[in-house]
Amino acid sequence: MPRTLALGVRPSHLGCTGRNLHGNFRSSIPYCLRPLSTSHHPSPFSNRYLLERSTVLPSPRDTAEHCRRITSNSTQTRPYLTDAIRTHQARKMAPKLDSFFSQVDSLSDAFIERLRAAVAIPSVSSDAARRPDVVRMAHFLESELKTLGAHVELRPLGKQPDNPALDLPPVVLARYGSDPAKRTILVYGHYDVQPAEKSDGWATEPFDLTVGSDGRMFGRGSTDDKGPVLGWLNAIEAHQKAGVDFPVNLLMCFEGMEEYGSEGLDDLIIAEAPKFFKDAEAVCISDNYWLGTEKPCLTYGLRGCNYYSVEISGPGADLHSGVFGGTAQEPMTDLVRVLGTLVDTSGKILIPGINEQVAPITAEEETLYDNISFTMETLHESLGSKTTIFEDKKPTLMARWRYPSLSLHGVEGAFSAPGAKTVIPAKVIGKFSIRTVPDMEIEKTNELVYKYVKEQFAKLGSKNTLNVYAQHTGKWWVASPNHWNFTAAAKAVERVWGVAPDFTREGGSIPVTLTFEQATGKNVLLLPMGSSTDGAHSINEKLDKRNYIEGIKLLGAYLHYVAEEPKK
Amino acid sequence: MPRTLALGVRPSHLGCTGRNLHGNFRSSIPYCLRPLSTSHHPSPFSNRYLLERSTVLPSPRDTAEHCRRITSNSTQTRPYLTDAIRTHQARKMAPKLDSFFSQVDSLSDAFIERLRAAVAIPSVSSDAARRPDVVRMAHFLESELKTLGAHVELRPLGKQPDNPALDLPPVVLARYGSDPAKRTILVYGHYDVQPAEKSDGWATEPFDLTVGSDGRMFGRGSTDDKGPVLGWLNAIEAHQKAGVDFPVNLLMCFEGMEEYGSEGLDDLIIAEAPKFFKDAEAVCISDNYWLGTEKPCLTYGLRGCNYYSVEISGPGADLHSGVFGGTAQEPMTDLVRVLGTLVDTSGKILIPGINEQVAPITAEEETLYDNISFTMETLHESLGSKTTIFEDKKPTLMARWRYPSLSLHGVEGAFSAPGAKTVIPAKVIGKFSIRTVPDMEIEKTNELVYKYVKEQFAKLGSKNTLNVYAQHTGKWWVASPNHWNFTAAAKAVERVWGVAPDFTREGGSIPVTLTFEQATGKNVLLLPMGSSTDGAHSINEKLDKRNYIEGIKLLGAYLHYVAEEPKK
Repeated sequence: MPRTLALGVRPSHLGCTGRNLHGNFRSSIPYCLRPLSTSHHPSPFSNRYLLERSTVLPSPRDTAEHCRRITSNSTQTRPYLTDAIRTHQARKMAPKLDSFFSQVDSLSDAFIERLRAAVAIPSVSSDAARRPDVVRMAHFLESELKTLGAHVELRPLGKQPDNPALDLPPVVLARYGSDPAKRTILVYGHYDVQPAEKSDGWATEPFDLTVGSDGRMFGRGSTDDKGPVLGWLNAIEAHQKAGVDFPVNLLMCFEGMEEYGSEGLDDLIIAEAPKFFKDAEAVCISDNYWLGTEKPCLTYGLRGCNYYSVEISGPGADLHSGVFGGTAQEPMTDLVRVLGTLVDTSGKILIPGINEQVAPITAEEETLYDNISFTMETLHESLGSKTTIFEDKKPTLMARWRYPSLSLHGVEGAFSAPGAKTVIPAKVIGKFSIRTVPDMEIEKTNELVYKYVKEQFAKLGSKNTLNVYAQHTGKWWVASPNHWNFTAAAKAVERVWGVAPDFTREGGSIPVTLTFEQATGKNVLLLPMGSSTDGAHSINEKLDKRNYIEGIKLLGAYLHYVAEEPKK
Repeated sequence: MPRTLALGVRPSHLGCTGRNLHGNFRSSIPYCLRPLSTSHHPSPFSNRYLLERSTVLPSPRDTAEHCRRITSNSTQTRPYLTDAIRTHQARKMAPKLDSFFSQVDSLSDAFIERLRAAVAIPSVSSDAARRPDVVRMAHFLESELKTLGAHVELRPLGKQPDNPALDLPPVVLARYGSDPAKRTILVYGHYDVQPAEKSDGWATEPFDLTVGSDGRMFGRGSTDDKGPVLGWLNAIEAHQKAGVDFPVNLLMCFEGMEEYGSEGLDDLIIAEAPKFFKDAEAVCISDNYWLGTEKPCLTYGLRGCNYYSVEISGPGADLHSGVFGGTAQEPMTDLVRVLGTLVDTSGKILIPGINEQVAPITAEEETLYDNISFTMETLHESLGSKTTIFEDKKPTLMARWRYPSLSLHGVEGAFSAPGAKTVIPAKVIGKFSIRTVPDMEIEKTNELVYKYVKEQFAKLGSKNTLNVYAQHTGKWWVASPNHWNFTAAAKAVERVWGVAPDFTREGGSIPVTLTFEQATGKNVLLLPMGSSTDGAHSINEKLDKRNYIEGIKLLGAYLHYVAEEPKK
C-alpha cells in the first residue's frame, strides 16, 4: 500500500455525503486559564519550517502578563498581545509582512465591524424561513469582494432536495489576481450558520456581535465560519492599504449550505475542478479549531463518519400504554435491547470485524503523541467533567484520532419532551454513528453493522419489523503534512504566534476536505483560526479578538510563505 | 382482606397526581366493519338489570341494514338507527323516556350545533397561549347552563404550579334541581382539549366540527370530552322541551385542566366533598370509551400508573461525537443498557418483586373473560398490526386489566428529530411507566424499581451519574359493579342500545375517579359515550353521530333508572 506518512495517506474516493457538524459543546471556559505553551518539540515530518526556531519566544512570565492584559483590556483598541510576541512578529524577516501586520492592527476595528455586519445577517441554512437571509449574506460577500477588486460569480445550485420549493443559496466563487508568475491557492469557507435564538440560553443577542472587555466576541457564526471567511477578505484589504503586493492568486469558494449537508457542493466542486479551480495548486480550509486554547495547530487528518438508523416498527400508530401495555410487543423495548449490544461504557465497539480493520500502530506513530500540546486537564475542562474513558493523554489522543468510536445519538419517534407521556411509540428509529479511521472500508463496515444488528434483533424473537441502514457515510481523510502547503502554513504560525504548530488530526469529519482533495488532486490543508472553546454550534458561540486579528495575519502570512515555496 | 368482588375492591388512599392520558392511536377504522353484537351473556354481578332481556333485539340482518344506512346517509337528519332498535326503544316501558328520546331526536341538529360551537373554542390546556380560550370555554358552559336554569359557580384554582404567571382555568360547578325527594347525582367531565394543528396530519380543520356523510363528526374535543359534557346539558334541554320532569338533582363538575394533569382539581374535590358535593349519592364520569365499536360497556376498574425517570449524566454539556467519541463515557450508552434490562419483548417485567405483588386469580374471575365482546381481530384493527404478545383473547384481556405492564416511552435529552446529528448527549432521561393492579403498593413498587435500576447501572462500572425517581404515581381503582349506580346504568344501556353492556376494566388510568371515590365515599361509575376508534388525543379525533345522540339518551335514561332505584 502506498504510504507517504506513518499514519497513512491512501488513495481515496468520493463517498462523503454527510454533514459537516462541528463541536456541539457549550463550554465557556475563559481562554486564559493556562499559560501559552512554549514547548518546542521537533516536527516528526520536516525541519524546513523550523529554521526560525532560534528566535526568542515569550516566557511563561510574558504569558501571564499576556493573560492579564487580555482580561483587563476594556476596549477593542488596546493591545492584547505581549510585547514579546509583538517583538517576535516584528523581528522576523519579510518587511512585506511587517507592513501587512501593522496594517491589520490598524484596521482591526474595521475588521470587527465587518464581522459585526456579517453576524447581523442570520444566514441560518437549516431554516427555510431564513433562506432570504442566507442569500443576502451571499450578496454581502459579493459586494465586499467586488469592492476589493475581486472577480465574483454567484453560482446557483438548483432546488433543495428535501424541499423542492426552495432554491439553494448560491456558492460564491471569486478570484483575486491572475498573475501567471504567482502561485494560485484555493480557499474554502461557508457563510451560513447554525440556528440560534436568545431563548436557547444565549447570554447576548446571537446575531448582534458583542465584544466583551476580555476580548471574547460573541455571536452566531463568529468562529463558524464568518470570522475565517472574512479573514481572507481582510487580508486582501490590509495588503491593499499597506501597499504590499498580494503574494498569490487567490481562488475563493464560499458556500451557504454547510450547516445543512453542503447540498449541491460536491457536484459543483467536481464540475469546477477543471474550470474555475483549474489553476489551484493547493487548497486551504479554515473551518476547524485549535486542539486547545493556546497552541495553534495544522490539521492533516480527519475521521470519517458512517451514520446509521435502526428502525423498529410494529403497531400502525402510536398507542396508549394504559390500553395496550402488556398486550402489544413494543418497538421501543426491542430497540433499547438492540442498541445496548453495540458498544459498552468503556467505548469498546462490540460489532465483530470493526476493530479488526484498523491500521496497526507503527513505531514512528508511537512517538507522535507525547509532544502534542494537550493535557487531560484540558479535556476535563472541555468535557465539563472527569468522565473520560482513559486517564492518560496518549490513549485519549489515539482514541480521538486513530481509532473508531461508536456513539448513540438518540431515538426518533419516541417521547422526547420533558414531563410524562404514556405513549407506546409505534415506530422508533435509533441513531448511531461510527467514526472511521484508516484502513476501514465503508462498504465492509456497513455490511458488518447490518449483519450484527439483524442478528441481535433476531435473538429477541419479536414480531416487530427491523430495518437497518446507513443515513450517510463518509471516508476518513489523511493528508501529507510534508507538502509545501503545510510547510508554508507552519512558518506562518511560527511567525505570527511565535510557536511551532502542533500537527494534529481531528476526530470529526469535514467531508468537503476529501472532495477538494479528490476533485482537484491537490494537497489540502486545514488551517484553523479559532480555539477549542469557541463553541461552534452551541449557545454563546464566540471568536476571541486575538484569534481573529492574529488569524488574519496568519492567513496573509501563509500566502506569503506559500509564494516563497519553490515550484517543483 | 375485605373483598366485595373477585377482582378486588380495596380500601384506597389518595395518591394519584398523574395525568389522565387517553388513547393515543390514530385508527380511522369505520365503525361498521362488524355487526352489532347480539350476544347476551349473563352478568356475573347481578340479574336485576336483566329484567327486560326478553325484548326482541335486532337480528344480524337488521344490523347489516343498520350499517348500510349509516354509510349511505348523506344528511344529518336522516335516521341512522335500524327500525328494530327504534322499535325496541319505543316499546320499553317508561312513557317519560319515550318523550325524552323523541325530543332528543328532534333536537339532534341543535345538539350538533352546540357541539360545533364548543369544538370551535380551542381550549388547549397545555398551551399557555391558549389559556384565554380555555377560560372562554368555561364561560360558554356557564352561559349554556344558566340558560338552562342551572345554578353555576366558576371556581378559581389559583396559579399554574409550573408557570406561576398563569391563572389556572376555573372549575365549572353547577347544580340543576334541588328537590329533596329526588336522588342527587354528581357528574364529571372536562372542557379542555389536547393540542391540535391541521399540519399534524388532520384531514379537516381540527377546531371546525366536520360531519361526514357516514355520521362521523371530526373535531378536537368531539369525543374527549366536549361531546359527553354537552350530553348532560342536552339531556336537560330535551327534558325541558319534552315537558318531562328531570328525574334527579344533578351536580356537575367540569374542569379545564384535565389534559394537563388536572392541576388543582384534587384539592377542590376534597374541599367540596362536604360542601357543594355533599348531597351526591353516586358519581358518574363519562370520559372513557367502549372496548370496541359496537358493544356498549360500563367500566368498574382501572390500572394505576407509576411513571419513572432514569437520568444519566456525565459531561457538562452536549458533545460532538467526532471530537469526543472514544474518549468520553457516554450517558446514552449507559442508558440503553439499563433500559434494556427492565422488560423483554414478551412484556415480562424483569424487575424482581413486581409480579409477586399481583393478586392471584380466583375461579370466579376465570369465568369473566370469555363472554366479553372482544376479539383478537378487534385488537389487531386497533393496533394496525398483528404484533400482539398473546394469540388469544383471554390472556390479552387479563394482560390489559389485571396484570402490570412496563412500557418504555422515550428518551429526553438525546437527539430525537429526523435526520442525522452527531451529538453525544450530556444528560439523558429515559422514561418508563408501570401500570399497576391489585394488590400492588405504590411505595413498595417504587423501592423495587429504584433498587433494581441502581444495581443494573452499577454493573456497568460507569463514571457517569445515575438518578432514578418517580415522576408521578397513581393507584389502581376497582369499584363494585353490584352497586345500584351500575345497575341503573346497565338498564339504561339495554334500553337505549338494545343490548346488555359488558362490564369492563380498563388498562389506563383516570386518577380523578379515585379522587371522587375517596373524597365523597360514593360509588363511581364510568359510563362511556364514544367508541374505541374515536382517536382521543390523536389526529382526526371524532365522535360518531349515533354515539353522541344515543349517548344523550343514555345519560338521560341512566338518570331515570337511577331515580327508580330504591333508596336503602
